[in-house]
Amino acid sequence: METYPIEIGGVTRHVPLHEPFPGVRLPLVEFLGDIEFVRAVANELVNKVPEDTDLIVTAETSPIPLAHELAAARDLSYIVARKRRRPYMVDPLIQEVESLTLGAGEVLWLDRRYTERILNKNVVLVMDVVASGGTMQALERLVHRAGGKVAARLAGFHQGNGAEGIETVAELPML
Amino acid sequence: METYPIEIGGVTRHVPLHEPFPGVRLPLVEFLGDIEFVRAVANELVNKVPEDTDLIVTAETSPIPLAHELAAARDLSYIVARKRRRPYMVDPLIQEVESLTLGAGEVLWLDRRYTERILNKNVVLVMDVVASGGTMQALERLVHRAGGKVAARLAGFHQGNGAEGIETVAELPML
Repeated sequence: METYPIEIGGVTRHVPLHEPFPGVRLPLVEFLGDIEFVRAVANELVNKVPEDTDLIVTAETSPIPLAHELAAARDLSYIVARKRRRPYMVDPLIQEVESLTLGAGEVLWLDRRYTERILNKNVVLVMDVVASGGTMQALERLVHRAGGKVAARLAGFHQGNGAEGIETVAELPML
Repeated sequence: METYPIEIGGVTRHVPLHEPFPGVRLPLVEFLGDIEFVRAVANELVNKVPEDTDLIVTAETSPIPLAHELAAARDLSYIVARKRRRPYMVDPLIQEVESLTLGAGEVLWLDRRYTERILNKNVVLVMDVVASGGTMQALERLVHRAGGKVAARLAGFHQGNGAEGIETVAELPML
């Protein structure tokens, strides 16, 4: 199997290539389960979390370990916007993720007890990989609708041109 | 809002109550985003991870921080069975989660590159809350089908009678 080497802060991973369309191959980074790699990425991002940050907000599922490690490094808590409604949610905020691809868009769900924690807070948004930037934009709208302020947008990697205004550690090339 | 107090290793949370049916109220534990609480639970479980454990396996989404902290404490990696097919998956193992409630069951997806990592390995299964035990059973079947051995089944909490053979830290009562 052909792989692509990614090195972050001295930690190297030879990741598989995913071919979504014939002739387009994308390195497949995995944050779930790889603590050493996640910590290396978090270590590169932690100084980009502004001093007055109150809270980290991320989206289900793959960015969760990065948000967890970044929050731990700065003694913050974090909130995870869900991709499916959970049975216990009361009056949740619902935000569509706009997508350039055709078909049904994804939706982010945020329970009301979390929107109350965001009100008037300085929030840092965290993603693992930013491609179109749609999920990051949806997170930003959620935070604004909940009355919070976005202090920074951070991601491990960007792929393509959708990462304007987002600080990332490295680019994932299309091969 | 009425809450229920949960104390684990000196960390106390007053969690909201969820009423799935009239007259039944369940304490709503949240592992996502609460690092101090997750670490307290992981600290109670870490000595139940057998010495010869190779790998931790969990399921999307809410058990991820607990699996992450348990794995970090024992210098292990972990694998997350997904609840939706991801575009990059090749020849994934698919396992239905048997449920006592009516309607469509959930399905766990495990990419082939992960099933290969489970072969002949000693695996510890980790969940956050066990109610019917259906997700834990589905994880066990996935590991067996991938050729691994289940060394222990660990969960933060159990609720009801579905936790036979599963070591948990505390019971969540029905109120």
